Amino acid sequence: MELLKQRLQDEAIIISDSIIKVDSFLNHKIDPLLMEKIALEFCTRFADKSFTKILTIEASGIAPAVITGLKMGIPVVFAKKAKPSTMTEFLTARVHSFTKDKDYNIYVSEGFIVKGDRILIIDDFLAHGSATRGLISIAEQCGAKVEGIGIIIEKGFQNGGSILRGLGYRVESLAIIDKILQNEIRFRE
Amino acid sequence: MELLKQRLQDEAIIISDSIIKVDSFLNHKIDPLLMEKIALEFCTRFADKSFTKILTIEASGIAPAVITGLKMGIPVVFAKKAKPSTMTEFLTARVHSFTKDKDYNIYVSEGFIVKGDRILIIDDFLAHGSATRGLISIAEQCGAKVEGIGIIIEKGFQNGGSILRGLGYRVESLAIIDKILQNEIRFRE
Repeated sequence: MELLKQRLQDEAIIISDSIIKVDSFLNHKIDPLLMEKIALEFCTRFADKSFTKILTIEASGIAPAVITGLKMGIPVVFAKKAKPSTMTEFLTARVHSFTKDKDYNIYVSEGFIVKGDRILIIDDFLAHGSATRGLISIAEQCGAKVEGIGIIIEKGFQNGGSILRGLGYRVESLAIIDKILQNEIRFRE
Repeated sequence: MELLKQRLQDEAIIISDSIIKVDSFLNHKIDPLLMEKIALEFCTRFADKSFTKILTIEASGIAPAVITGLKMGIPVVFAKKAKPSTMTEFLTARVHSFTKDKDYNIYVSEGFIVKGDRILIIDDFLAHGSATRGLISIAEQCGAKVEGIGIIIEKGFQNGGSILRGLGYRVESLAIIDKILQNEIRFRE
């Protein structure tokens, strides 16, 4: 998606050779018009699919997931990183955050994803794929089928994308970064 | 907003005389089409205003804020409940959660809300108003002006709404709950 790559080139702040900061338009300050274009791109790429629900994870997944849900006309469920006291029956999975170097659980209330659901997973980043695999685990625990994974930015130099594709999942990433240099982000063609 | 009150009457789970659970359509599983109607209602109620940015707080504020931002054509900033390691310059405020009975800080990166901004604050719930006052504090610290506060559900039996209105803020709540009974939610007319 050229527009997204341009925004990344113009606005992403390079923190290291593996980390970029995109909080000026994606995961802190959000440009809803860009989110709408991202949502429409997911609609186009998955036009052959008929999803029943979108599954994402708080907090940065919510904005693209909700606008994609609006365009596709389907509900969105976001997994929580802490279990609310009012959540009694739930599905859970263990996720490792490489950025924060710690493990945490994600939770989805029982009944919000069910057997027969055809799931589109949406997230802002795909790096090692731990969060995405946690979402897949939650969906599959209850017999739902993950029919697509839509990612805004894939770090192609980390192994999440190849693991997921190797497992047979359909992953559509709108921008795949091959290398982060000091002053430039190199994208996969 | 009648449609919202109906959804609350039909789907909200009454936990106690002060707590309802609305995670089947608002803050865990999300109905994006309802969110769109909520966003359009905010557009109508604030039609006399010209905002430059929407300010909300993660995670449940993001969905209504982003769709409202899309309809109004303005950016959305969501305050974070934990400071990312890459956030170096920031505005912060202390918030008390009555549900969890604890204090926490919220953070917005410096430069994302600036002097001259005309802010619309959006949130899913208004109870004691602590989170909303934290957002107001962040906006006013940098010289931005809070010109409107859009709330989906106001707990009218708690004092957040009357404090904010008493301070002169324009608060538009789409459903104001006067009383939570065992099997019924009573709304303010």
